[in-house]
Amino acid sequence: MSHLFLRTLREDPAGAEVASHKLLIRAGYIRPQAAGIFAWLPLGLRVKAKIERVVREEMAAAGAQEVHFPALMPREAYEATGRWEEYGDLLFRLQDRKGGDYLLAPTHEEAFTLLVKDLYSSYKDLPLTIYQIQDKYRDEARPRAGLLRGREFTMKDAYSFDANDAGLEASYQAQRDAYERIFQRLGLEYVIVQADAGAMGGSRSEEFLHPTPVGEDSFVRSEGGYAANVEAFTTVVPEALPIDGLPDPVVFDSPDTPTIETLVAHVNANLAGEYTAAHTLKNVVLALTHLDGTRELVVVGLPGDRDVDDKRVEVAFAPAEVEPATAEDFAKHPLLVKGYIGPWSPEGPVLGEESATGIRYVLDPRVVDGTSWITGANIDQKHVHSLVAGRDFTADAFVEVATVREGDPAPDGSGPVSIARGMEIGHVFQLGRKYAEALGLKVLDENGKLVTVTMGSYGIGVTRILAIIAELNNDERGLIWPASVAPFDVHVVATGRDAAAFELAEKVSADLEAAGLDVLYDDRPKVSPGVKFGDAELVGVPRIVIVGRGAADGQVELWDRRTGERETVAAADAVARLTSR
Amino acid sequence: MSHLFLRTLREDPAGAEVASHKLLIRAGYIRPQAAGIFAWLPLGLRVKAKIERVVREEMAAAGAQEVHFPALMPREAYEATGRWEEYGDLLFRLQDRKGGDYLLAPTHEEAFTLLVKDLYSSYKDLPLTIYQIQDKYRDEARPRAGLLRGREFTMKDAYSFDANDAGLEASYQAQRDAYERIFQRLGLEYVIVQADAGAMGGSRSEEFLHPTPVGEDSFVRSEGGYAANVEAFTTVVPEALPIDGLPDPVVFDSPDTPTIETLVAHVNANLAGEYTAAHTLKNVVLALTHLDGTRELVVVGLPGDRDVDDKRVEVAFAPAEVEPATAEDFAKHPLLVKGYIGPWSPEGPVLGEESATGIRYVLDPRVVDGTSWITGANIDQKHVHSLVAGRDFTADAFVEVATVREGDPAPDGSGPVSIARGMEIGHVFQLGRKYAEALGLKVLDENGKLVTVTMGSYGIGVTRILAIIAELNNDERGLIWPASVAPFDVHVVATGRDAAAFELAEKVSADLEAAGLDVLYDDRPKVSPGVKFGDAELVGVPRIVIVGRGAADGQVELWDRRTGERETVAAADAVARLTSR
Repeated sequence: MSHLFLRTLREDPAGAEVASHKLLIRAGYIRPQAAGIFAWLPLGLRVKAKIERVVREEMAAAGAQEVHFPALMPREAYEATGRWEEYGDLLFRLQDRKGGDYLLAPTHEEAFTLLVKDLYSSYKDLPLTIYQIQDKYRDEARPRAGLLRGREFTMKDAYSFDANDAGLEASYQAQRDAYERIFQRLGLEYVIVQADAGAMGGSRSEEFLHPTPVGEDSFVRSEGGYAANVEAFTTVVPEALPIDGLPDPVVFDSPDTPTIETLVAHVNANLAGEYTAAHTLKNVVLALTHLDGTRELVVVGLPGDRDVDDKRVEVAFAPAEVEPATAEDFAKHPLLVKGYIGPWSPEGPVLGEESATGIRYVLDPRVVDGTSWITGANIDQKHVHSLVAGRDFTADAFVEVATVREGDPAPDGSGPVSIARGMEIGHVFQLGRKYAEALGLKVLDENGKLVTVTMGSYGIGVTRILAIIAELNNDERGLIWPASVAPFDVHVVATGRDAAAFELAEKVSADLEAAGLDVLYDDRPKVSPGVKFGDAELVGVPRIVIVGRGAADGQVELWDRRTGERETVAAADAVARLTSR
Repeated sequence: MSHLFLRTLREDPAGAEVASHKLLIRAGYIRPQAAGIFAWLPLGLRVKAKIERVVREEMAAAGAQEVHFPALMPREAYEATGRWEEYGDLLFRLQDRKGGDYLLAPTHEEAFTLLVKDLYSSYKDLPLTIYQIQDKYRDEARPRAGLLRGREFTMKDAYSFDANDAGLEASYQAQRDAYERIFQRLGLEYVIVQADAGAMGGSRSEEFLHPTPVGEDSFVRSEGGYAANVEAFTTVVPEALPIDGLPDPVVFDSPDTPTIETLVAHVNANLAGEYTAAHTLKNVVLALTHLDGTRELVVVGLPGDRDVDDKRVEVAFAPAEVEPATAEDFAKHPLLVKGYIGPWSPEGPVLGEESATGIRYVLDPRVVDGTSWITGANIDQKHVHSLVAGRDFTADAFVEVATVREGDPAPDGSGPVSIARGMEIGHVFQLGRKYAEALGLKVLDENGKLVTVTMGSYGIGVTRILAIIAELNNDERGLIWPASVAPFDVHVVATGRDAAAFELAEKVSADLEAAGLDVLYDDRPKVSPGVKFGDAELVGVPRIVIVGRGAADGQVELWDRRTGERETVAAADAVARLTSR
């Protein structure tokens, strides 16, 4: 400790909100360099190396081979797959002295695809899974929570290459199994949830989430075993109903009812029957900004008891960016009567590509043909009831953008779902042939025919996992590392001014090191016991040996950082117990 | 080998000129991604990791602690030290989504200085040496020779921090010693030469050069032990001579003598005495482009038997860029009479800040007061003789820009120097207080007084060293790695179609691995012996075991890749011999 490059801090760093961010800085593991960009100090680098070692060992066990790509990559391949544009502002772009376009890679699908195309040409060369542990860059709009959402981060990204779908399935499963082992070894509880594969163009995708109420991702699960993140949840669509014989739509006055709440109160007071928000059709006007910069209005129709879910809508309309329509948007579309918007009015269809407005109209899948709805008549202060889907209005498309609720049925019939929160710790994708097609990666199959390779992509955020482990393992006094990733195995603290204490502490340290343990020895001669204990608690090595007053009698204290228990034992016994685990 | 991600290539890659570049690509160690930017394949990554391990071990032995900085760094600190500008086009610059300026760091002096300033405040915290092994970026104008001069490269850069000069000297010596051990362990012959410290603003600087006729750097050494790179060589300045009584300058006609050669022929034919180029004063007109973009002409005066050395002139005028004056430059300075330029003409001084032209005039240190010269009279077709330094002309400054020659005296009196070539493999600098001053890094000394910290900077190009080792260890059939950095310890090759060969080869591989060796086993069933041997020679693992025809009798062949010797021995003996070394 007298030589370690470390200065622990008593104060929380400005702007740090989450525990891992505060403690990793205060305990001298990382140091901020710019928003979302950190330097790694000796303690942090040790923990990171331990996580990387676990990942490397399990990748090797799964038959994956390590390679390494530069962060700085030329534009061309990303252009070919469309991601140069699709990534938008998330991409750090730059030019070299000759004006050539480059980027700092946010992920390397293109590069791996081209590398395999460069070198391999036959089904006999496959299957192949290659990976790297590498520093990636994303220019997040709001980097926050320290390492949890940084602009630079270390990722293990693996890519599998197979000549056919069965091969992909096997490669995918091997990585999925490796991920389970990695998280088990790191002591990280996880749930595997179905994820939306659309954005990456693939067919199957799962996320590993660590369940925690403070997680930034929502996921749903049923007791029957279904689990999916909210973006991937699919609605159980009710059967369509017969339309014949349903009453015609009736327009009615509904003054001052621009919200679902005021509308429901109005119809319960003025129409026969009892109504809830579920009887109304809510129409939400969204503005999409497409990659080419064009802006398009889209109206989403969904049952009035649900809202548009931000994450689901983002996935549904990707790569376009989505935001609520603005007053300016409404001004440009005078046919939309705000607060009273509906797909139909007595003059005819109002929403839909073929309608008077030409505005795309997309529906929640629950709005099946034959269902009747109360909704806006697109006339100020008027609504309509008995408006029938499939008769009076139709969708240009169906989209999954409505909020998911506790009790919604799981799509696999395994029962009602509950909703929980989690942090993403890994992601496995079946990319399929999207990248291989875009970049021309083909191999000769058994019959000498060229076939397009099918790929998988598998990511673990190394620095993110480190932060999550820190987030889950701390108390008000500091970090408490699990033994598997702790920067040192044992922290030996010599206290007092008695030479005997320092001599014994040195011997204990030497004995522990001789047994193969990594020891952090606090040998600082003029630092008070209180400061040393405080530093030990902040730094968070799980097993601490205090060598102080009892040293003359060969006694030391074993201190368990997690439980706080202290026990006085003979020095030799302490060594024996610490090395026997 | 049947699973290894490797495809050896028979053809040299286009554009590759040096052996390491060709062979590292052909043997499947690296793959180009863009000019001077490479991906690392499994074999390459293994060699790189072995070099890094040697570096890490010696850094730890020298008391240096590992940290890690991002490649992407904000502009501010580099602005404060002037390097944001000074690096010119060598720097990859970019902006984030908010318009903030960033760079891809070519080296991290500023960041390390600020990190220590952030955390440390007392002389008691020092000495401190911290280092990283990290990927750096320089936008070289002409990336070439593969990894020898890339735009991305992995470097070990260490920085020392001390409260006083004696501390810096000790920290410097510790790193210097560590470098010697590193190069010894890597089997890299080296010469330590004095280097120019000026560009980094420091006081002492040495380079580790690997001596080789194909090296890109020149250095000089004397038998008495002096060694310096050409930029750092200093001239032994002769004593000044008395001026009194020297004859006055005489202008004479010298038609068609615009070169030193024609001038010497002319004076030998027309003047009394015997003359050589050494009697003439050559005046070379250079154009400097300063950082602020201004262009300035400078004239260098030096003995006519020497030329201006490109590297020495670059160092002498840094950070300005230097090129020969162009016709356009001459057109702007009609007072300069090309081919007949001199510092003096019958009308008065021609060169110098106080002269008619106002052009800066700098002299080689050999042009001491009292020496007489034949030089241009700055009149077309006329020269002057008996022009005396210190009487008829003076320098604005003296600069070391003349070529160094075999036989020049070493500045330390250790005898005449010889000239050799080498490749830079490491560099140690005493930076002094330049960075600490620019960035305000001070600590309290023993007397409670704030003192500016003094620093050192120590670099080894990890990927460059890898390329140099490859460059030094190959033949026409491929690479021949030294055992200390070979990707595998032993390459076992099973040949033929006999099951016995594969069984024995597997057993030999398993036995070698059980003894702790890394084994590359060529188990490919349908590949001919010739192809397997060719691959083994190309890949370059130094020790090869061939298991083929003799397998049924338990016989294998030991093949030394470097000497080409093959020897048939019993399998068990082969294992014993390979594991006993």
